[in-house]
Amino acid sequence: MANTFGHLFRITTWGESHGGGVGVVVDGCPPRLPLTEADIQPDLDRRRPGQSKIVSPRKESDTVQILSGTFEGKTLGTPISMWVRNEDARPEAYSEMAAKFRPSHADYTYQAKFGIRAWPGGGRTSARETVGRVAAGAIAKKILRRHYGVEVLAYVRQVQRIVATVDPEKVKAKDIESNIVRCPDPAAAQRMIRLIEKTRRAGDTVGGIVEGIARGVPPGWGEPVFDRLEADLAKAMLSLPASKGFDIGSGFDGILLTGNQHNDPFRAKAGKVYTTSNRSGGIQGGISNGQTIYFRVAFKPVATVMHEQDTVDINFKNTTLKARGRHDPCVLPRAVPVVEAMTALVLMDHALRHQAQCGQAISTPQTTSGIR
Amino acid sequence: MANTFGHLFRITTWGESHGGGVGVVVDGCPPRLPLTEADIQPDLDRRRPGQSKIVSPRKESDTVQILSGTFEGKTLGTPISMWVRNEDARPEAYSEMAAKFRPSHADYTYQAKFGIRAWPGGGRTSARETVGRVAAGAIAKKILRRHYGVEVLAYVRQVQRIVATVDPEKVKAKDIESNIVRCPDPAAAQRMIRLIEKTRRAGDTVGGIVEGIARGVPPGWGEPVFDRLEADLAKAMLSLPASKGFDIGSGFDGILLTGNQHNDPFRAKAGKVYTTSNRSGGIQGGISNGQTIYFRVAFKPVATVMHEQDTVDINFKNTTLKARGRHDPCVLPRAVPVVEAMTALVLMDHALRHQAQCGQAISTPQTTSGIR
Amino acid sequence: MANTFGHLFRITTWGESHGGGVGVVVDGCPPRLPLTEADIQPDLDRRRPGQSKIVSPRKESDTVQILSGTFEGKTLGTPISMWVRNEDARPEAYSEMAAKFRPSHADYTYQAKFGIRAWPGGGRTSARETVGRVAAGAIAKKILRRHYGVEVLAYVRQVQRIVATVDPEKVKAKDIESNIVRCPDPAAAQRMIRLIEKTRRAGDTVGGIVEGIARGVPPGWGEPVFDRLEADLAKAMLSLPASKGFDIGSGFDGILLTGNQHNDPFRAKAGKVYTTSNRSGGIQGGISNGQTIYFRVAFKPVATVMHEQDTVDINFKNTTLKARGRHDPCVLPRAVPVVEAMTALVLMDHALRHQAQCGQAISTPQTTSGIR
Amino acid sequence: MANTFGHLFRITTWGESHGGGVGVVVDGCPPRLPLTEADIQPDLDRRRPGQSKIVSPRKESDTVQILSGTFEGKTLGTPISMWVRNEDARPEAYSEMAAKFRPSHADYTYQAKFGIRAWPGGGRTSARETVGRVAAGAIAKKILRRHYGVEVLAYVRQVQRIVATVDPEKVKAKDIESNIVRCPDPAAAQRMIRLIEKTRRAGDTVGGIVEGIARGVPPGWGEPVFDRLEADLAKAMLSLPASKGFDIGSGFDGILLTGNQHNDPFRAKAGKVYTTSNRSGGIQGGISNGQTIYFRVAFKPVATVMHEQDTVDINFKNTTLKARGRHDPCVLPRAVPVVEAMTALVLMDHALRHQAQCGQAISTPQTTSGIR
Repeated sequence: MANTFGHLFRITTWGESHGGGVGVVVDGCPPRLPLTEADIQPDLDRRRPGQSKIVSPRKESDTVQILSGTFEGKTLGTPISMWVRNEDARPEAYSEMAAKFRPSHADYTYQAKFGIRAWPGGGRTSARETVGRVAAGAIAKKILRRHYGVEVLAYVRQVQRIVATVDPEKVKAKDIESNIVRCPDPAAAQRMIRLIEKTRRAGDTVGGIVEGIARGVPPGWGEPVFDRLEADLAKAMLSLPASKGFDIGSGFDGILLTGNQHNDPFRAKAGKVYTTSNRSGGIQGGISNGQTIYFRVAFKPVATVMHEQDTVDINFKNTTLKARGRHDPCVLPRAVPVVEAMTALVLMDHALRHQAQCGQAISTPQTTSGIR
Repeated sequence: MANTFGHLFRITTWGESHGGGVGVVVDGCPPRLPLTEADIQPDLDRRRPGQSKIVSPRKESDTVQILSGTFEGKTLGTPISMWVRNEDARPEAYSEMAAKFRPSHADYTYQAKFGIRAWPGGGRTSARETVGRVAAGAIAKKILRRHYGVEVLAYVRQVQRIVATVDPEKVKAKDIESNIVRCPDPAAAQRMIRLIEKTRRAGDTVGGIVEGIARGVPPGWGEPVFDRLEADLAKAMLSLPASKGFDIGSGFDGILLTGNQHNDPFRAKAGKVYTTSNRSGGIQGGISNGQTIYFRVAFKPVATVMHEQDTVDINFKNTTLKARGRHDPCVLPRAVPVVEAMTALVLMDHALRHQAQCGQAISTPQTTSGIR
Repeated sequence: MANTFGHLFRITTWGESHGGGVGVVVDGCPPRLPLTEADIQPDLDRRRPGQSKIVSPRKESDTVQILSGTFEGKTLGTPISMWVRNEDARPEAYSEMAAKFRPSHADYTYQAKFGIRAWPGGGRTSARETVGRVAAGAIAKKILRRHYGVEVLAYVRQVQRIVATVDPEKVKAKDIESNIVRCPDPAAAQRMIRLIEKTRRAGDTVGGIVEGIARGVPPGWGEPVFDRLEADLAKAMLSLPASKGFDIGSGFDGILLTGNQHNDPFRAKAGKVYTTSNRSGGIQGGISNGQTIYFRVAFKPVATVMHEQDTVDINFKNTTLKARGRHDPCVLPRAVPVVEAMTALVLMDHALRHQAQCGQAISTPQTTSGIR
Repeated sequence: MANTFGHLFRITTWGESHGGGVGVVVDGCPPRLPLTEADIQPDLDRRRPGQSKIVSPRKESDTVQILSGTFEGKTLGTPISMWVRNEDARPEAYSEMAAKFRPSHADYTYQAKFGIRAWPGGGRTSARETVGRVAAGAIAKKILRRHYGVEVLAYVRQVQRIVATVDPEKVKAKDIESNIVRCPDPAAAQRMIRLIEKTRRAGDTVGGIVEGIARGVPPGWGEPVFDRLEADLAKAMLSLPASKGFDIGSGFDGILLTGNQHNDPFRAKAGKVYTTSNRSGGIQGGISNGQTIYFRVAFKPVATVMHEQDTVDINFKNTTLKARGRHDPCVLPRAVPVVEAMTALVLMDHALRHQAQCGQAISTPQTTSGIR
């Protein structure tokens, strides 16, 4: 299961940084959805290296090819296999990694687990693996938008100490894409870009926070107990390379309030229920309540720095390592489409799960609540 | 899957707050483990209401009964079914909930999803569901301790603005249990207790942070990509009632550092690799690196407050609600054993997964690394 | 997963023959289904020992209790926990089994796998485990009947060499229940009963064939490739104690025909497609085609015979064993409700899977076929 | 899950008959296994069309390419992605299928389920999908052979009424491969070949029985209750195109015996337990007992015949259809490597499951049985 995500809308990713390529198989996609590579490529372009001056200069066109699961431009309901060929692999840049473990990377742990590792580019541990997630997420986003009216977005909320001001209820995709750091607060964006450039020049890296949102999710998606919507989102986000934290709604800040201050009062208008505040982050008891879902993901500063650092070699001798290769000074601008993809995959899975159990089997009752 | 957790060491919980009882089925437990109710009850006693003056006064002995899966005091390798009978159910205290949705509870979302809900005590949304998790977790903790030398602990790290000083490398179970708030910093513990008592008298509630740790986890547990150890921990923690956030290692605070400051240098001593700092929180690339695993879980202030609040009734008319019933002014002291249980379940599952794939199939190689 | 069956409509069974009881947790049941013990008990009564002169005389009322998942007589959408207490356990009848392995039972293999076994009554290997399946299956049968118009039946088709004449299109539940062997061909039924009684008196046992059918399944249930409807039925049936074979439609007999003889021609009438023969058994390419599903399950003669047999003891010394205890001379009459239950569970799971992927996400197209 | 098989050693297949290609992702493979395309290709060559005069003349080299999961000739423990490009697609041969449903094929049911289908070559319903299974199975076979000493074989046991004489204990791979029908009984093989050739000339098709065996499986593989070894084998076999039945050990024939005749007596020699007959087929209570596993799979005659047959078109009008295209007169010779592959995949999965639960967690006890 390690490389498969989702229960009904399932993806299985494969590929190493410097192998033949990276790809994904999407299983459980509803049939008859119009789908071509043109639906996928834009999100891959947002993720790919070389897109701007503040990301890794590795040259990958990341051109996606759909190998199965569509016919005459529509999905068949069968597995959609997609892949991207690796183009600009330069294993020689990593030859020192064959003999040494990079600090705060996964070289040592993979070696400890498997007794073998593909050291060029970090192999499977490379963030290049997220190509498959983004390709699959583009399909989920399309279905969510077309068939459920759900909009999924993410943006950079914070880089180191620079915090943007953003209203999750109003932020638009074009505001996010209006600058290379993908922060919809233009002033903060410029400061972030300057910080990243300065950091890169210093051979160092910075981290920050990506905020993800979903607007238009109807009440009722999610599951009690283990597969709560926020639990699946948390897993999705902590499965991303370099992520260290997740919180939803009021999150870690909410603990400073009392219950009386924190609760979201319900009100009704025109037969619809809403809350007058949204500290719950759009989810209550694991199930969406119809309000905007929003959450934060903390990304650590990239581990590859151009400074000499203490480490050990594969014979367990103390040594030092100074990174070479082409790397990101800050992972956040490229993490934005990945956070969107994972959010869409979680929501799509829960949309299908909801209609499986609560969709048609039992005819709609005359409940006292009038909800259904 | 909603009510099942784990891939190889799997638990399925069942039960409503005011139904016949709550229980769990544990599947995949290794055979021949000595096991009786005496191994389970102590953790249930740490979770149960009525244990101290700062928790809910509901009177439940929470006496566990093992119905299957053991023979002559040892596990059989077959499913272990355990349950606890509900004793002190007082549905009349919740009668107003039949007609109104409690703010920031799951009444509305369950009704929206299922078109029906067990309103007494919140039914399945009640934290009483965690009885099954704690019972199952006690088994996982026992195996981890006896057979892998892994110690799992949790404690209250923060209540509202009161932050305890704790060293994850040294904290002991008896220090945690030395006071009713389960905070191993005695001075902070006393302040927390006073705050909770004062809050209760005000009819209000407070939240905070529980920190979970695991010491002695060998390098190599965890999986690449989706089922990273931290991803499964994040899901486990966000599946808990009232939890709003999770971070591991440096977490949200780590974003203030640069990569050069943040990285954990490797060193070797006597053929073993360790890191001289532990901002990674014991996990790198989803896989344990042999250092102590530590993470934080944010719990919001309990939603049930004794103040009148705006809400809607089941006919979608605006109204107000003032809670009655027996509730916790702060969920943290009782959340401690639940966090331990979920941590142990995640680790146990990954221990079995590791030995499945990397255990015996391929004979140990002569790797250059000497790790295996 | 060993003790869990199903992907969306999931059951987890637990319990040993002579432990506290046997039970099941049903997860994924649609909400708002009227459900009480009265819906479950009749099928358990058809399965229980002591019901007639041709089955085991063990005295078990097998009275089911629903512990969770319903409220005011309706399902909540949360896990339904049900159990039956063991009443007439007589472990002393099995004391010889503590030291010897019964031939063609699972005593030896459980010991080899787990290094421990609950020898009284065979523990988890006992067919008593099927109580949970039948209880869960009764729920599935009710939903299938009420909400999809699907009727699931099974009956004894053959006992040793006595073959009944039955028309799967017309057979009725009351014909099946009209005699104690559950064979809807009255003449064959009488011969079967006499054979079973004669065999019992000889201290021996007989096997035979149960045929299962499902009428009214709409076209489209089932999945391509691995989770074909017939593949899931095959797994369900081969998971039953004492079953040794499964075939569907023309099955093993179909290999005597040529393709030209074997194919089922399609015809259309009044906008509906049907086949003029049904050698496919209602399933083509893993997916239902709207015709009656029918299949056969072979059950070996019960392994417990009252003759002295060669075996080995737990110290691997050759010895002999002559069974005592209360046993069935023929498992088939009691297997009928179990085959029905498993059939219903498979169909219910696929009904939910179908509506998840093909239900609502993509709006119905104007296909040239007019099918949808 | 429809396109994924296995719990720990998992494969996900993708691809349509006339799309870009067909492939598979293998997840959970142990690391450090020497593996190149040369390990895979021989089994694909046994499966491919055009290999002899009695199979389909479609020209496909079926050259496999490994895209990920290996490094310097060894498995990494990460997903192994493999694919085969479609070469000799001639959709024009199927143009009539765009408008008509082929009898006893899955055209109608796919259309009914998905509202769309890839009609060229049957799309996903084509047996070409089994390429991925065979490629994955080759890996499983290699591990089973090298690391567990388990040999998996299959052969044609029966074509229509021609039944071969084969001893499952002694049959060798080279005997199976000594003729184009893959029947190790030379005399029967020649009669089978003549029958298939004659049938092809008549534009018709024949079916038969493939027998699968596994020798050297240690006692203890398999699971109680639902995931019995024979249940997973049954599912695996009934998931194959054209299969209609499965039985194990004495199977359907065993019902003619009494229990006293049918049981397999245990004997011990030199500290090892064996049975003096093997009607159980090497599995008791779902778990291997150390004897040879053998089972039969019934394959119907191929549905594509060169005769005019009644059918309906996609507008539900009655019509007739006479097949064109390149097809097999008998699927059995090419089914042999597929049955081997699925057998190996089931066993490999259970090998890993066994070592997960019963491998290392609990130290080996001093049982009275001496088994462990």
